[in-house]
Amino acid sequence: MLLKKNIPFTYILGKIRKELIFVSLYSILVALMYNNFHFTRISIPIAIPTILGTVISLLLAFKSNQAYDRWWEARTLWGAILNDSRTLTRQLLTFVDVDYGSEEKRAFCERMAHRQIAWNFSLSRHLRNQDPTYQLEKWISEEDLQNVKNYTNIPVGLLELQGNDLRYAYKLGWINEFQQVEIDRTFSRLTDELGGCERIKNTVFPATYSIYIHMSLILFILLLPFGLIEFFGVVEIPLVIAISSSFFLIEKMAIHLQDPFENMPTDTPTTTISMTAERDIKQMLKESYKAEEKPQGTVQGPSKVFFIL
Amino acid sequence: MLLKKNIPFTYILGKIRKELIFVSLYSILVALMYNNFHFTRISIPIAIPTILGTVISLLLAFKSNQAYDRWWEARTLWGAILNDSRTLTRQLLTFVDVDYGSEEKRAFCERMAHRQIAWNFSLSRHLRNQDPTYQLEKWISEEDLQNVKNYTNIPVGLLELQGNDLRYAYKLGWINEFQQVEIDRTFSRLTDELGGCERIKNTVFPATYSIYIHMSLILFILLLPFGLIEFFGVVEIPLVIAISSSFFLIEKMAIHLQDPFENMPTDTPTTTISMTAERDIKQMLKESYKAEEKPQGTVQGPSKVFFIL
Amino acid sequence: MLLKKNIPFTYILGKIRKELIFVSLYSILVALMYNNFHFTRISIPIAIPTILGTVISLLLAFKSNQAYDRWWEARTLWGAILNDSRTLTRQLLTFVDVDYGSEEKRAFCERMAHRQIAWNFSLSRHLRNQDPTYQLEKWISEEDLQNVKNYTNIPVGLLELQGNDLRYAYKLGWINEFQQVEIDRTFSRLTDELGGCERIKNTVFPATYSIYIHMSLILFILLLPFGLIEFFGVVEIPLVIAISSSFFLIEKMAIHLQDPFENMPTDTPTTTISMTAERDIKQMLKESYKAEEKPQGTVQGPSKVFFIL
Amino acid sequence: MLLKKNIPFTYILGKIRKELIFVSLYSILVALMYNNFHFTRISIPIAIPTILGTVISLLLAFKSNQAYDRWWEARTLWGAILNDSRTLTRQLLTFVDVDYGSEEKRAFCERMAHRQIAWNFSLSRHLRNQDPTYQLEKWISEEDLQNVKNYTNIPVGLLELQGNDLRYAYKLGWINEFQQVEIDRTFSRLTDELGGCERIKNTVFPATYSIYIHMSLILFILLLPFGLIEFFGVVEIPLVIAISSSFFLIEKMAIHLQDPFENMPTDTPTTTISMTAERDIKQMLKESYKAEEKPQGTVQGPSKVFFIL
Amino acid sequence: MLLKKNIPFTYILGKIRKELIFVSLYSILVALMYNNFHFTRISIPIAIPTILGTVISLLLAFKSNQAYDRWWEARTLWGAILNDSRTLTRQLLTFVDVDYGSEEKRAFCERMAHRQIAWNFSLSRHLRNQDPTYQLEKWISEEDLQNVKNYTNIPVGLLELQGNDLRYAYKLGWINEFQQVEIDRTFSRLTDELGGCERIKNTVFPATYSIYIHMSLILFILLLPFGLIEFFGVVEIPLVIAISSSFFLIEKMAIHLQDPFENMPTDTPTTTISMTAERDIKQMLKESYKAEEKPQGTVQGPSKVFFIL
Repeated sequence: MLLKKNIPFTYILGKIRKELIFVSLYSILVALMYNNFHFTRISIPIAIPTILGTVISLLLAFKSNQAYDRWWEARTLWGAILNDSRTLTRQLLTFVDVDYGSEEKRAFCERMAHRQIAWNFSLSRHLRNQDPTYQLEKWISEEDLQNVKNYTNIPVGLLELQGNDLRYAYKLGWINEFQQVEIDRTFSRLTDELGGCERIKNTVFPATYSIYIHMSLILFILLLPFGLIEFFGVVEIPLVIAISSSFFLIEKMAIHLQDPFENMPTDTPTTTISMTAERDIKQMLKESYKAEEKPQGTVQGPSKVFFIL
Repeated sequence: MLLKKNIPFTYILGKIRKELIFVSLYSILVALMYNNFHFTRISIPIAIPTILGTVISLLLAFKSNQAYDRWWEARTLWGAILNDSRTLTRQLLTFVDVDYGSEEKRAFCERMAHRQIAWNFSLSRHLRNQDPTYQLEKWISEEDLQNVKNYTNIPVGLLELQGNDLRYAYKLGWINEFQQVEIDRTFSRLTDELGGCERIKNTVFPATYSIYIHMSLILFILLLPFGLIEFFGVVEIPLVIAISSSFFLIEKMAIHLQDPFENMPTDTPTTTISMTAERDIKQMLKESYKAEEKPQGTVQGPSKVFFIL
Repeated sequence: MLLKKNIPFTYILGKIRKELIFVSLYSILVALMYNNFHFTRISIPIAIPTILGTVISLLLAFKSNQAYDRWWEARTLWGAILNDSRTLTRQLLTFVDVDYGSEEKRAFCERMAHRQIAWNFSLSRHLRNQDPTYQLEKWISEEDLQNVKNYTNIPVGLLELQGNDLRYAYKLGWINEFQQVEIDRTFSRLTDELGGCERIKNTVFPATYSIYIHMSLILFILLLPFGLIEFFGVVEIPLVIAISSSFFLIEKMAIHLQDPFENMPTDTPTTTISMTAERDIKQMLKESYKAEEKPQGTVQGPSKVFFIL
Repeated sequence: MLLKKNIPFTYILGKIRKELIFVSLYSILVALMYNNFHFTRISIPIAIPTILGTVISLLLAFKSNQAYDRWWEARTLWGAILNDSRTLTRQLLTFVDVDYGSEEKRAFCERMAHRQIAWNFSLSRHLRNQDPTYQLEKWISEEDLQNVKNYTNIPVGLLELQGNDLRYAYKLGWINEFQQVEIDRTFSRLTDELGGCERIKNTVFPATYSIYIHMSLILFILLLPFGLIEFFGVVEIPLVIAISSSFFLIEKMAIHLQDPFENMPTDTPTTTISMTAERDIKQMLKESYKAEEKPQGTVQGPSKVFFIL
Repeated sequence: MLLKKNIPFTYILGKIRKELIFVSLYSILVALMYNNFHFTRISIPIAIPTILGTVISLLLAFKSNQAYDRWWEARTLWGAILNDSRTLTRQLLTFVDVDYGSEEKRAFCERMAHRQIAWNFSLSRHLRNQDPTYQLEKWISEEDLQNVKNYTNIPVGLLELQGNDLRYAYKLGWINEFQQVEIDRTFSRLTDELGGCERIKNTVFPATYSIYIHMSLILFILLLPFGLIEFFGVVEIPLVIAISSSFFLIEKMAIHLQDPFENMPTDTPTTTISMTAERDIKQMLKESYKAEEKPQGTVQGPSKVFFIL
């Protein structure tokens, strides 16, 4: 009742169903052996499993700390992508003289801002190993799309197109040399954020650590019923299930958090952030933005938050 | 007596009233069963609850560490917003030639500085899911207000208006190209700070971890009286209440800290910081600032500090 | 003997005198009860106080970690203030053509550099809730002083005066547009450092955590003699005093570290750093700097280091 | 089964073969002595090895934390090198007018971009103590190669050549003063990343800590069989082997992670990253890039990930 | 055998000789009392010293973590100094037109680059409380040397001379306004790194923490033999020596790491880094660099690494 968001209980159990079935059968078996067949010699001192449990708790806490750091870094990178999308649009509108200028200049700003929307969606799919050119035609011209398909890394290609347009605008005198360099810096930051996401995506979390924790956890659960049976008798069964569920859940959480771009519901919400960027960029360009899409915005109350697990 | 600030004791207890009543009844029940009905077999080795307590202490310490980091990051972001509000005002007054310049230039500086005050108050309300346009008419023109209402994200709209004015000042030659880019950078920093606050607001802290800790805590408190009853007898009752209060309090604190924009007294003090920015900006503009508001300033002694819990 | 700096032993004990007297009397009382009145039933298993001690050690270690981070951040901010004071002076002397220039330019550089000295001393006093205008007349003109007194936050006012002078120098052509923006950036960094110090000053460390640790510590010390009496007899008295002193000392240290601007000997040495900045700025301006003040410099051997606690 | 990537089991065991053989023989010996020769007095309380195990777990967790930080910093530095390689190429193509310009300008961009590819490969070999000029003739001219061989530190030499070309382009008017400074900043970042890699390479992780942990670990394993023999009998042998394998594996992992440029399969993938940079730069220059090399790209599914250990 | 670098065993023991002699005598005395004089009542439960040992391990791990952070920050600062030395030289050679320019311009670049070499050596000695003007005449002119001796803080003086030369070059038109500001930024970074080193040098690590750990450690070692004697008999002597050596060694390491500029072999290698900077700067200036000095370079295989302890 203390918890702010209640996750459906069945959802949680579904995540560790296989483990739970095994643990239940195992603890029932131990209880049967102890009570019915009088294998009382199998009781071991409670100190062994509890101290083992302390060690595993510590290691899991450390590991979920590191996994959380990875996940938070991924989230921060996408937050920065949203910030720089807004900054780029504001810079275009501030630096290029759109309001009183020619139609051409306005079209230029829109082309670059739309390409930034495309970049966000494209990077989001690129990180999940999906086709990064999917639906890009909504935002960039057919020519750009063909151009960009020559690149293995689509977002890198899109950023080069942005650089080309920046040179073009500078040559036509629409922006001065300062403004060119300043917008180029925004592109450099976007390049850094792209590289940062790829770093997290492509770097596997040290596997030995996970194996070590997983093996210790199984050893702990195998020993646990023998340690509890003497004092708790049949009550040992729910205790073992409760304790091992906690450990399995937290281990799963750490494994999910450490890889935040794996196409799972607990991922970094790259699509939602891309849609927020789309909404804000469109509104800055005074383009019509359909009302029914609004609920997908960033600050929208509890209904839009997502669970970690 | 060692503590710097004494929080009213009843305030603390009020936070965990429900939990305390349950724990008191439970521990009294166990004592009654043990003493009056001679259920002495229910005593369990003290090692089980104490080691469980160690584990929970560790996990709570880790968790409150992470929650504290979130809360401190939110606080740091709002500190940066205050810094950049002051920096923006100083840049306007330094770069635009106000003192000896025309009335028009002075009005321009005031308009931008006041819009920054509006931005602070608006972001503060935006983060708490309150109406972000509330009372903005005190600081921005009616035209601006209508303009900004077209945006789902009001602070983004306000920053675009700032960008428009910046272009306007540059075109009139009131600021040079360097100064334009430099002020634009201050806007980029404000965009980053806005995005950072939204990131903290919209990212739910991993829920499994909290559930795991909460369940372990309840298990621990259920077992505790049985571990203590043998050695302490009736003294077990106050001991159980004291120990479980500590754990509940620290768990509550972590839950409060991890969401610093939830309209609670322990939030990041966004309204106070917005008022400090208002005061400093007004004094820099040499506008009259009512004396009675002064006590709300930043460095004002112990009376203005706020409790975490 | 392993320790680099020996703190006078009495100094340490003076800090926890009250606590020591209470603990001594309490442990003597327990020993008397056990030995003379044969209340041997009061002995409790050693496991309870020692495991409680482990938990408290962990929490104290975590807490002093966080407190140390605050204190180190405050120290780093003041280190940055020293750095930026030196940078500002070097920029003034490099950018404004002083050596071969008119007397007027030289006076300008001195005025700004002296105002930076004033800013340091003023911020130091502002953070300790002392009068921030004290002795400022040594460094700034009477007119500036009156001007600055209109501000609630004196350092903000001083930075605005610096901005005014920067505009003045630019209009006279003493610095070019690049140099103006570059010096303005130094002011922005100083604004950030000012805001960072105020953030640490005004944000109270979560109080629940401290209360929880303090209460657990008292519970631990109350139980400790009963755990030790069986094995150690009268030797329990010095053991209890030694162990509880350690815990009280480390708790005190954490409380002191977490608030580094409280006018105590363990504060961040803001006055010393301000004097170092004064010395370096004066020597850069080739002003005479009295020899007797030199020992207060930064790298001056062990005599100038300060104790924590 | 919970683990995302399954490492071949024999690969893991191969890493600690020597240690495993020793531990197996030792634990069998202890079991023989206990069971056959009735040296039952050699049993020691289980508390000693388990508490020792807790301590070692903690220290290993701390140490692998620090080792992981070093390894992650190295990975982040190489991510930044990839980002800045892309940024440099984009800046060259944006700032120098290549498309409609003379052949000469195009050749200039290619020369600088190719030299960046050479820089990446050269730094990769430099960090592994291999010949850093190996195959550089693929990317830089013979004259450059001779020039660069006068440097002890080849990447520093390459960066100076880049600086020379930058001056040359500026003198010919191909880039303006802003663009020169902006590209120079990219070189400064590359200098910082070079220096950061050398710092990690040349700074040995505190050795005492490792020795202390290793000695404690041996002490723990020597005592372990004596603690388990009483309760587990012959089952002690597999338990000792399982527990000591976990500890040895995690110790090995920490030792591998802390030195990420040692020519081992678990290194930071500097060659792969250099090839990704080569691919992206070539595609940005519209050079033909052989299809068969594509699978070495950054986001290429599970086949390209690498194990830690 | 797992360890990458083997430190001579006698070197390690030499560090804690006094402590080892005391501990040996003490544990022998306890064994004699127990075995020969049958003071068997002195045996205490093993739980007391082992749990105390757990606590101390935790605190030492925390403390050496913080000490390591200080030491690593110091190392990072000197890495940044090396980076900025290379960057400054590259900027001078890129921005000032040396190759085809007059002799005068070349002399100017050399003068500034040499002064940077002097700055490194001077800062290195300044931090160790040695004469910071020692051998500076190798790198700077007699006039500069006299000038700089008027400063209490020699590196600050050298940076002001650099600023003077920068103004001089700008006035003669050798660098443009952008380049002046960009090089000035390199000076600002060097100022920050100088200040960072002084901050670490002058801020004593909280002493109470060290005292608390040291006292707990002594208490632990005094109790240890009594806890082991019952189970191990005479074997207690080597065990006590082995365990206390580990703790003393790790305590010493933390104390050494926390003060990285104390003229000890485990310091941050400021002299080696200064020599690397000298070598690279000389090679960039195409000056002859004596071959026999080359082995002191940065990446030179295992012979140049240094031990921590």
